[in-house]
Amino acid sequence: MAERLVVVGGDAGGMAAAMQARRARPDLDIVALEKGRFTSYSACGIPYLIGGDVDGHERLIAKTPQQFREARVDARILHEVMGVDLAARTVEVRDHEHDRTYTLGFDVLHVATGATPFRPPLPGIDGPGIYGVQTLDDGLRLWERAKAADAHRVVVVGGGYIGIEIAEAFIQRGARVTVVEAAPQVMVSLDPDMGALVTDAMRGLGMDVRVGVGVDGFDDGVVHTADGDIGADLVVLGLGVRANSRLGKDAGLATGEKDALKVDRRQRTSADGVWAAGDCCESFHLVAQRPVHFALGTIANKQGRVAGVNIGGGTASFPGVVGTAISKVCAYEVARTGLTEAECRRYGFDHDAATIESTNRAGYFPGAVPMKVKLVSEKRTGRLLGGQIVGREGAGKRIDVLATAVTAGMTVQDVVDLDLAYAPPFSPVWDPVQVAARKLAGA
Amino acid sequence: MAERLVVVGGDAGGMAAAMQARRARPDLDIVALEKGRFTSYSACGIPYLIGGDVDGHERLIAKTPQQFREARVDARILHEVMGVDLAARTVEVRDHEHDRTYTLGFDVLHVATGATPFRPPLPGIDGPGIYGVQTLDDGLRLWERAKAADAHRVVVVGGGYIGIEIAEAFIQRGARVTVVEAAPQVMVSLDPDMGALVTDAMRGLGMDVRVGVGVDGFDDGVVHTADGDIGADLVVLGLGVRANSRLGKDAGLATGEKDALKVDRRQRTSADGVWAAGDCCESFHLVAQRPVHFALGTIANKQGRVAGVNIGGGTASFPGVVGTAISKVCAYEVARTGLTEAECRRYGFDHDAATIESTNRAGYFPGAVPMKVKLVSEKRTGRLLGGQIVGREGAGKRIDVLATAVTAGMTVQDVVDLDLAYAPPFSPVWDPVQVAARKLAGA
Repeated sequence: MAERLVVVGGDAGGMAAAMQARRARPDLDIVALEKGRFTSYSACGIPYLIGGDVDGHERLIAKTPQQFREARVDARILHEVMGVDLAARTVEVRDHEHDRTYTLGFDVLHVATGATPFRPPLPGIDGPGIYGVQTLDDGLRLWERAKAADAHRVVVVGGGYIGIEIAEAFIQRGARVTVVEAAPQVMVSLDPDMGALVTDAMRGLGMDVRVGVGVDGFDDGVVHTADGDIGADLVVLGLGVRANSRLGKDAGLATGEKDALKVDRRQRTSADGVWAAGDCCESFHLVAQRPVHFALGTIANKQGRVAGVNIGGGTASFPGVVGTAISKVCAYEVARTGLTEAECRRYGFDHDAATIESTNRAGYFPGAVPMKVKLVSEKRTGRLLGGQIVGREGAGKRIDVLATAVTAGMTVQDVVDLDLAYAPPFSPVWDPVQVAARKLAGA
Repeated sequence: MAERLVVVGGDAGGMAAAMQARRARPDLDIVALEKGRFTSYSACGIPYLIGGDVDGHERLIAKTPQQFREARVDARILHEVMGVDLAARTVEVRDHEHDRTYTLGFDVLHVATGATPFRPPLPGIDGPGIYGVQTLDDGLRLWERAKAADAHRVVVVGGGYIGIEIAEAFIQRGARVTVVEAAPQVMVSLDPDMGALVTDAMRGLGMDVRVGVGVDGFDDGVVHTADGDIGADLVVLGLGVRANSRLGKDAGLATGEKDALKVDRRQRTSADGVWAAGDCCESFHLVAQRPVHFALGTIANKQGRVAGVNIGGGTASFPGVVGTAISKVCAYEVARTGLTEAECRRYGFDHDAATIESTNRAGYFPGAVPMKVKLVSEKRTGRLLGGQIVGREGAGKRIDVLATAVTAGMTVQDVVDLDLAYAPPFSPVWDPVQVAARKLAGA
């Protein structure tokens, strides 16, 4: 009998692995089990489906179960893995469509169970009008609700990436949007000074942004906050996600940072022949030099690919992440990489920081708009530790230069010296990231 | 008497040095001599002045002579340095405005004499309707001519950066534009396969692009080519520039690559107390590990700053360049960094190359348009040697990630592993530069 790989979870972390393993091992029997209705989709596209930028959820699907089957990966949707027996090398599977349970043997197991939106234990949080957004199934439920005639007043709880993207989506739908954020600023993954720029931008877009305001609970049509009650036809939670590590943990897999599954750089879990990738597991932060849990599509894809190469008998490793992220709220772009000042303090880096304002294009060129860049460096060595950008068109993706420089261990002087591309429609003669580096280098 | 710094040349390479020296040495007497009418302007902005994107040449001027004088830099326009006597430590200055010549002593000399558009020795090339574009004075002459009622038929000789930008400018003015390029494709700084994409794009914009066609000479209203005569109300030369090194050379300064002034990493010329920066001098190519001559505003600014810090008694060095450049022709963006395949062959690098097509945003996101990325790596080591990008919105500045990776000595696998920013409005989940790196890494 052929050796069997069972993949638990049908999105990026699972299916990237399945496809890599398929390529390397034509002999392998591969079964992928997905509890929801969809495989390989862009969860990051959900806000744009709701906002109307994307015309139909089918567009978010990269590969259907049928397409996987054509590639000889037996992808089964509405099949939920209820338990794993590592000693017996079996999984117990619930087939929701046919309402039956069966046991499936495996030789190799790959766990890619994803993450779930965090629901703090607040009164009323499990009420019907309160939505989290993580899977496409979640997204479709929210989308159905958003299209209803009475979805005028939307309250978004939490002003992180998902929060600001959902806020944008409902502004585009013409709803009245309130964002409630317990921290002093939205985008707590930025330093407060940069987060304040986003708060201001969102207010400028007509959103009611309440920072420093905790939520006390929910009732039908109302969110109770420290700042008073807010009427809400629907509520979306943007409070981050938690790794779906329960299945692996119950089977005896070790967990680490934020209760995510522990993996090494080859995506091996603590158990022989069991791999993991994506939102359910840790990654290694190359600057902080410690495990972290970031639930991001890029990481899931990379980890999945690496797991699949290794499962297929090759050798691949995922060196880690530097905490890069990007988002936008209408015309405003927000990006970060490496460590913030707050993270420097948390992880014990003695740091310097500098913030500058520049423009996306030469100042005299049509469409030149301001952007702010903040850089953080290690005090003793001048090594670039991180960067944050808030601006408009062309601002956000400049973070990639900083992500690359941080990964390479460059100093801020190295960034000053970089031979970056300049022409008036694209940049001032000193790119904004270099203007910031000059300030920080004292040059 | 105060020590005197004489700066020859009033644009970036000269004035960045003057301002840095001013800051470090308040005691220094600084005289800057500019033969033209303008100081510190964006020569790169000239095509956009002609095309109408920039409303008036004043907008291209970063700092006027008056502003320099207020900063205690004695900037003199229409003052041309005719000769340098290094032994006597004097320059001979022609004051064109008052039609007089005087001798000025210096303790320290900084040479930033720029470059001049190349005029091959063809019959009729010095005729009145044939324009080069380098200084703002050049640009204003061309602009005056462009605004005349009869500037309908424009022939651009040479399809490099200036050529394609000037072609765009005249298309925007409603002219009929013919581009004549002797090479098999425009943009010879790219490999031919990537240059062909630009040729196609320009034709799609309604330009008559004649590649593989040499120019034989010029007569009034006509350009003689191997492909027949082309009627021309005006002709613009885009055949590259030559370093204005004659003044320095006559004074005894050593020249090197392409007859540009030799400088070390601190911007010292071969003579004591004489510095140089900008288009008149060499830079060091960090990948090819040899001197090169690139006339670019970014390099002039960096070299000028470094020279000024050193003149001011500090210590700075300019490590070098990696050959990054960017341009656009209407909606099409073109960028390059590092070595092309042709350059690998020229400099003796055994290389691999891969080209991919991807999109600027997630494929399902509105405004997603195709882009092509070509990467070149060292065969034995996998080290990234260079990249080329042709695409539309958001394509060109992605070259900066590659420029940074090339500078850091990263391998293509390192690029695959980079933690680049992803969200659907900004990128596919694998950024196009990583899709190319994956192909080249065989991963």
